[in-house]
Amino acid sequence: MSRPQEFNTQEALSQAMQVFWRKGYEATSMADLLIATGLSKSSLYATFNSKREIFLAAFDDYRRSRAKDMLKILSEGPARVTLEKFFQMAISDAWTCNGQGCMSINQAVELATVDIEVANRVRGDFLGMEQVFSKTITRGQKEGSIKSSMTAPDLAKIFVVAFPGLQVMVRAGCEVDDIEKRLTSLLSVLD
Amino acid sequence: MSRPQEFNTQEALSQAMQVFWRKGYEATSMADLLIATGLSKSSLYATFNSKREIFLAAFDDYRRSRAKDMLKILSEGPARVTLEKFFQMAISDAWTCNGQGCMSINQAVELATVDIEVANRVRGDFLGMEQVFSKTITRGQKEGSIKSSMTAPDLAKIFVVAFPGLQVMVRAGCEVDDIEKRLTSLLSVLD
Repeated sequence: MSRPQEFNTQEALSQAMQVFWRKGYEATSMADLLIATGLSKSSLYATFNSKREIFLAAFDDYRRSRAKDMLKILSEGPARVTLEKFFQMAISDAWTCNGQGCMSINQAVELATVDIEVANRVRGDFLGMEQVFSKTITRGQKEGSIKSSMTAPDLAKIFVVAFPGLQVMVRAGCEVDDIEKRLTSLLSVLD
Repeated sequence: MSRPQEFNTQEALSQAMQVFWRKGYEATSMADLLIATGLSKSSLYATFNSKREIFLAAFDDYRRSRAKDMLKILSEGPARVTLEKFFQMAISDAWTCNGQGCMSINQAVELATVDIEVANRVRGDFLGMEQVFSKTITRGQKEGSIKSSMTAPDLAKIFVVAFPGLQVMVRAGCEVDDIEKRLTSLLSVLD
């Protein structure tokens, strides 16, 4: 059975998110959100009480979708290969999105400095990512694709720090070649 | 012999920088810069032709000062210890500055996305930092404070990625304890 209402809400949240990234949270008005989502005032307010509530719902939706993508990529193949794929994807996503209306770690961080509920989510996401890396690395050490004698939690911590680090470099317009070399060095700690 | 004019220009640039960080580049007006620096319109325009010129001069001044601090810290003691000190300082600076009127990697990156001359400087700074790390690590491997068999350039690349990564985490309000643990894991690749 199809669920058109739920589908529309997800679509609306995704449209809303685009506006928030493009204009910034402060500059986005309810009028902007009505235009972007194509929803009527009454149906938008029937679901959400405020701009902030729409933002948090859209952000959660985005986070869920990214976490799902991450788990999928990291589960398909030998751990060493999947970690490389994951970071290649994170870098190429950051290139694609640079300057456009889509989420970056920087934007999340800028919002986190002014909104404690956003900060809690961003912090939690880093911890969640660290756990997923750690599990993947443990699997890699068991199957043999990861040879490093460092512990999986230690290695996971290095990679969780590298994630925003690489994204910042893409955003700062670093050369592709420089970033690729840095990723190669980073992945070599697994060997 | 003292050089009062030069000293005043440096003071003025530092004051100007504070305003740029606090208000953001776009929102800063020439009037804001006159108030912050305490300079007259004629003396400000005698040295700089535009807001952008003031910004680039202030940014260069800030970059020179940070690069000097970095070289100093990394030269005083065994390489392994100086690298730890440098990262501890970078983290505690980021804590102190969080949300206040001072430079963060994020702000530099935001400006880099809209101004090619800022982007060139930020990219160059990452490359410069990578070279300084590499020299420090080479020294550490010679003196024995760094035992890792990875090459110095590879290790340097990991640390240059970690630098903005850790700053992003501070800015996102991650727990001190989580960040300290991540730094400890990161430094352990040197052992």
